[in-house]
Amino acid sequence: MSFEALKEQVLHANLKLPAYGLVELTWGNVSAIDESRRYVAIKPSGVSYENMQASDIVVVDMDGNLVEGCLRPSSDLLTHLEIYKHFPKVCGVVHTHSKFATAFAQAKRPVTALGTTHADCFYGDIPLTRELTREEIERDYEKNTGSVIVETYEKLDYEALPAVLVACHGLFAWGNSPASAVEHAFVAEKSAEMAYMTITLGGTERVAQYLLDKHYYRKHGANAYYGQN
Amino acid sequence: MSFEALKEQVLHANLKLPAYGLVELTWGNVSAIDESRRYVAIKPSGVSYENMQASDIVVVDMDGNLVEGCLRPSSDLLTHLEIYKHFPKVCGVVHTHSKFATAFAQAKRPVTALGTTHADCFYGDIPLTRELTREEIERDYEKNTGSVIVETYEKLDYEALPAVLVACHGLFAWGNSPASAVEHAFVAEKSAEMAYMTITLGGTERVAQYLLDKHYYRKHGANAYYGQN
Amino acid sequence: MSFEALKEQVLHANLKLPAYGLVELTWGNVSAIDESRRYVAIKPSGVSYENMQASDIVVVDMDGNLVEGCLRPSSDLLTHLEIYKHFPKVCGVVHTHSKFATAFAQAKRPVTALGTTHADCFYGDIPLTRELTREEIERDYEKNTGSVIVETYEKLDYEALPAVLVACHGLFAWGNSPASAVEHAFVAEKSAEMAYMTITLGGTERVAQYLLDKHYYRKHGANAYYGQN
Amino acid sequence: MSFEALKEQVLHANLKLPAYGLVELTWGNVSAIDESRRYVAIKPSGVSYENMQASDIVVVDMDGNLVEGCLRPSSDLLTHLEIYKHFPKVCGVVHTHSKFATAFAQAKRPVTALGTTHADCFYGDIPLTRELTREEIERDYEKNTGSVIVETYEKLDYEALPAVLVACHGLFAWGNSPASAVEHAFVAEKSAEMAYMTITLGGTERVAQYLLDKHYYRKHGANAYYGQN
Repeated sequence: MSFEALKEQVLHANLKLPAYGLVELTWGNVSAIDESRRYVAIKPSGVSYENMQASDIVVVDMDGNLVEGCLRPSSDLLTHLEIYKHFPKVCGVVHTHSKFATAFAQAKRPVTALGTTHADCFYGDIPLTRELTREEIERDYEKNTGSVIVETYEKLDYEALPAVLVACHGLFAWGNSPASAVEHAFVAEKSAEMAYMTITLGGTERVAQYLLDKHYYRKHGANAYYGQN
Repeated sequence: MSFEALKEQVLHANLKLPAYGLVELTWGNVSAIDESRRYVAIKPSGVSYENMQASDIVVVDMDGNLVEGCLRPSSDLLTHLEIYKHFPKVCGVVHTHSKFATAFAQAKRPVTALGTTHADCFYGDIPLTRELTREEIERDYEKNTGSVIVETYEKLDYEALPAVLVACHGLFAWGNSPASAVEHAFVAEKSAEMAYMTITLGGTERVAQYLLDKHYYRKHGANAYYGQN
Repeated sequence: MSFEALKEQVLHANLKLPAYGLVELTWGNVSAIDESRRYVAIKPSGVSYENMQASDIVVVDMDGNLVEGCLRPSSDLLTHLEIYKHFPKVCGVVHTHSKFATAFAQAKRPVTALGTTHADCFYGDIPLTRELTREEIERDYEKNTGSVIVETYEKLDYEALPAVLVACHGLFAWGNSPASAVEHAFVAEKSAEMAYMTITLGGTERVAQYLLDKHYYRKHGANAYYGQN
Repeated sequence: MSFEALKEQVLHANLKLPAYGLVELTWGNVSAIDESRRYVAIKPSGVSYENMQASDIVVVDMDGNLVEGCLRPSSDLLTHLEIYKHFPKVCGVVHTHSKFATAFAQAKRPVTALGTTHADCFYGDIPLTRELTREEIERDYEKNTGSVIVETYEKLDYEALPAVLVACHGLFAWGNSPASAVEHAFVAEKSAEMAYMTITLGGTERVAQYLLDKHYYRKHGANAYYGQN
């Protein structure tokens, strides 16, 4: 089996993070799952974006065992795997500490849907996980970060809300490809930025449900009429 | 009839949006109306600015029927058409989700005229539309967005206030050319940015009417003495 | 008499404004006075920075009469002249609408000296003029803007406080050369930016007088020991 | 003895300051101590970053006497020396007036550890020194700035908290190399920026101790598992 195409996709999606202003230093990572949903390609841990090559991308199986590559995978790997296991249509996952999303995560506030920019991408507030317990942090921290994300979506649709704030930490986002995951992370950050300005101006009222419906369904689903497809 | 010149104008005005930092991804569009006021050229829907060419620009008639081009026009087309129909001196229209203007739209506050930077371009507050009703959103949303803009100007001068905030949504601006529409959108964003800082510093008092008059009429009308014309 | 060197100086100082992020569009201008203090070279009105040449710079006498050049001088010319007439050691003047300084001007707050960054350049708060009266605005507005600046310095040292906020308007700064005037405008903007963050964090206490003294005199006057001179 | 390698290191670390957006004009400096801990190489005072060369870097002994170079050393030299004398594992020191860190210093607030981005680098709040007394400022100001930093760490671990805010002034940071000192200054600035947004959103609760432990020790110490070493 060859993972070349998967690794190229993951490389390019990772390089979008600094291009979109979503990461500083090495604070972010993108992964993708292969079609068989048996292998995940992910950024190596603590490696800078500047000279990263497709050959630096690491491939692991669904237990996190190394399958290809000689670098250590991102320390957030087990969170990515948990997301792939529970969200069956997700093919790409991204983690960032982008500044406005992280500010909301640190303030322990979801990003309320305050306008149509948000509604074009997210069908409701960008949710906030509960805080992990001491036990969850001390044992299997990264796996439990995934579990608490999955728990947050028990009554939410992960396809309609493809980004989440992990309390006190940062953002995870996903999509049907690594590129779409990165785009969702970008829109989440921009929605958080606009929400920050709106809230500090005194505006905290959620957008009306029918305006949310209109914008979300204008771009998504069978009756979408935005774009060229 | 040839629309080449009109399409070139519209292309260049659209490319100004990312150059001025007014759009992310594909969140914005510019149109222009031809001299006969029978045809409108507009950005295609959901197409990225990076490789856009004049041949991608779509031409429609005043009912929105496709006249030239093979892409789908911007989903905001019917809002643009409504503006052209009711504001007879407008020759270019722009829509953006630029961040400070959108924050005011989401906070449902007009951009108060707080200083001379604002007054150099806008003869008063940048107005805020009322929110659309459920019925207006569910049927003919984009046309109704235009109607609510027109309604906002019942007692306002659209030439002296060439930008408006649509509640919970974003900015529309216009001018006597697509380039001037984009410049008005840019000044509206910068005025909103300065207003944001001013308000969060505790300053909310509108500029005196005579200072507003002085700055506005220094640049506009028969006695203008700013610039080289 | 040749004004070539003066015009070159003024051109280069004007080009520093966009390079330092102090202006958008054409919202700013720099002038310089010649050694005889009889002629002032200034940016032409409403001309963009992109293709400006030394030959575009306008030279006027102290009554504002055109001496050299074929463009109309900056509409703020009479404010510049008033500053040169009353502040005899000033050889360069700059006007900007840079965003944080303008926010303070619009909020009608001086920029309090809150730390050493400010104190390295300004020996006290960056002052705020009173608002001009209706009469002052309607007749000889630009000259009166200069007069109200001069009035603000009745009991202040214009050399130790080389920048001022004009209420509801923007910043004027000066120095012993056009380059130094621009640097003072830049430091005023950065001091305003840091003051904005400090104040919105709840910090409003002026720096102790002895710390202000230490930093200001470390860089200025007979006992200065900062830099290489 | 040759200081060429030390001077090259110091040059490159200084050039990182503008590249990371940590300095404006000449407001920052980096130094390094040699292996014998008898000589310190430091940026010259008030020299711009643009054309700086290794030969401009100044070498002094531990009393601040010039050993190599013809420029005057940074006016903050004695603060650097005090840090090297009391923090024996520190091999590089940096001083900046980066904007968010300085805003906290001016507001006289430590940067509370509000999330994992902070905890990845700092094992607790970034501390704030007490204000210097009038006597400490008027006599031996720069040395006393170092002393008050050292005093702040009487009960704190300088290796686990490699950055400090000097009240009303700015940031000092350090590390086991000049490059690592600059990285700590960068992370301190980014942590301050996120803390600013978080606090202005109403979030002021410190991260749980066990989450701080988890993130700090994931990257530091014997059991670290982040990165490739």
